[in-house]
Amino acid sequence: LTGEFQALARLFTMLPPSPVGEVWAGDDAAVVAAPPGPLLLAADTAVEGVHADLGLTAIEDFGWKAVVATLSDIAAMGGRPLQALVTVAAPPGTDLEALYSGVVAAAVRYDCPVVGGDLAGGPVVVVTVAVTGTVDGEPVLRSGARAGDAIWVTGPLGGAAAGLRAIRSGDASEETAPLRRAHLRPQPELREGAAARLAGATAMIDVSDGLLADLGHLADSSGVGFALESVPVEAGATEADALGGGEDYRLVFTAPDGNRLEQAFVGLRPPRRVGVCTNDLAERTFAGRPIPPIQGWEHRF
Amino acid sequence: LTGEFQALARLFTMLPPSPVGEVWAGDDAAVVAAPPGPLLLAADTAVEGVHADLGLTAIEDFGWKAVVATLSDIAAMGGRPLQALVTVAAPPGTDLEALYSGVVAAAVRYDCPVVGGDLAGGPVVVVTVAVTGTVDGEPVLRSGARAGDAIWVTGPLGGAAAGLRAIRSGDASEETAPLRRAHLRPQPELREGAAARLAGATAMIDVSDGLLADLGHLADSSGVGFALESVPVEAGATEADALGGGEDYRLVFTAPDGNRLEQAFVGLRPPRRVGVCTNDLAERTFAGRPIPPIQGWEHRF
Repeated sequence: LTGEFQALARLFTMLPPSPVGEVWAGDDAAVVAAPPGPLLLAADTAVEGVHADLGLTAIEDFGWKAVVATLSDIAAMGGRPLQALVTVAAPPGTDLEALYSGVVAAAVRYDCPVVGGDLAGGPVVVVTVAVTGTVDGEPVLRSGARAGDAIWVTGPLGGAAAGLRAIRSGDASEETAPLRRAHLRPQPELREGAAARLAGATAMIDVSDGLLADLGHLADSSGVGFALESVPVEAGATEADALGGGEDYRLVFTAPDGNRLEQAFVGLRPPRRVGVCTNDLAERTFAGRPIPPIQGWEHRF
Repeated sequence: LTGEFQALARLFTMLPPSPVGEVWAGDDAAVVAAPPGPLLLAADTAVEGVHADLGLTAIEDFGWKAVVATLSDIAAMGGRPLQALVTVAAPPGTDLEALYSGVVAAAVRYDCPVVGGDLAGGPVVVVTVAVTGTVDGEPVLRSGARAGDAIWVTGPLGGAAAGLRAIRSGDASEETAPLRRAHLRPQPELREGAAARLAGATAMIDVSDGLLADLGHLADSSGVGFALESVPVEAGATEADALGGGEDYRLVFTAPDGNRLEQAFVGLRPPRRVGVCTNDLAERTFAGRPIPPIQGWEHRF
């Protein structure tokens, strides 16, 4: 067994050095420059046995996913990330280097350095990622959708749910590799979120609990109904995966119908129009049929 | 059982409303004004069964302590807190209202509103608090102590350790009430931290793992040794409690010997001089005797 401070000292060597004028990991708090614009703050927790079975998910991937889940919240504001604080609770024997290697890989990939955090004991692995960010302009809230706005998604859905199914069934075929990767190494759509903001998005949310659930949150916050006409389904996934499966980390946003999005999305996958917001709050339909009330992932207490 | 979103909606009613121009809990990320000065970032995790036995500690106190542990990190920089993100993982049946009532009580008391977070399932209660802060001037790091600096503590130590002992032994006497309170409802020394900064503190850390351990971290970061001459012991605690017991959340700081601290500490408990920094890195003594290497709390991996 290793002591906490020795483990932390070793993990700190995996982190980039602080730039001049800032103090990252190793003091009581990190000292960083405040952004000139608004400060965005988001945090997400990933719990072994709840969010992932570490018998099926490598602990590196678990670390990666914990970071991406929070970065996706920044993407959903049309923002960009600045810093991450990563706290880990874990039982003795946990491969902390592997866990942090996934954390740091995502932090490096998305330009969001880990500047601090905490390490503690615990019965299962729990990774909490808090992220700061900012936005060059106005953040896109969940609450700005208006009746008549079109609804867009940034890409095909259901890949992560189909990938999890493949992993659970022991399917290691070439065919399901992209789906398994969608589940194990999701990507936050930071560029897409910024593009949607520039294209005049009125409301936005990321698909972490499932399209119907997350679009429901957006509609609740905005005080609108919605009529989904179609949904782009990832190759190899089902329509049910696309409607109810979580952890795709695509973005769903609304914009005045007729808004031309092409210019903002140059160089990115063009978003897909999937429906329209309505002024009947009670209206929640897909292809003309009402949607059953619970369709997404929810923890129970 | 209650669903996550219903539970969150109920918890949100316990939080203060967002001021105009800011967006607190309820969106993908909180939107707040960035401070004009540097941004401080700290996070701490509290795990049921590791940091507290919920058979002995009320869950309200567990929530309070989780917030205070992180605020104490801001105090140790000489800073002031701005916002908190609180993430909770908890099993079904957890009294989330009670937990959040302790969290919100500390947040209100120390002027650090909870602006967001996350709620998830898990086998035990895990509360992670990430805090932003700022400092009106230069933050006090762990690394600035110089040989010859005097070492100060902001108050008597060992109360929390003695209080935990009283709680474990079922001692509910009037006599141990202040000690039990020191353990269950610690206070972050935000005013004292700011005073130490104004008084010219060269290095500072909070006593969360035990005086010897935390002063050891400060000395390691600063590249100095230390000679402790005495330690103020809380009434009802032992000298061992004061040297090795954690969670007192007092501050220990260094300042050039001869610095007059009275003016900065007007209205506060005067700090106590407990020793001096030396230029021999290997020197770690108390009352002239070498200190055994491990004296504080460490998690094991």
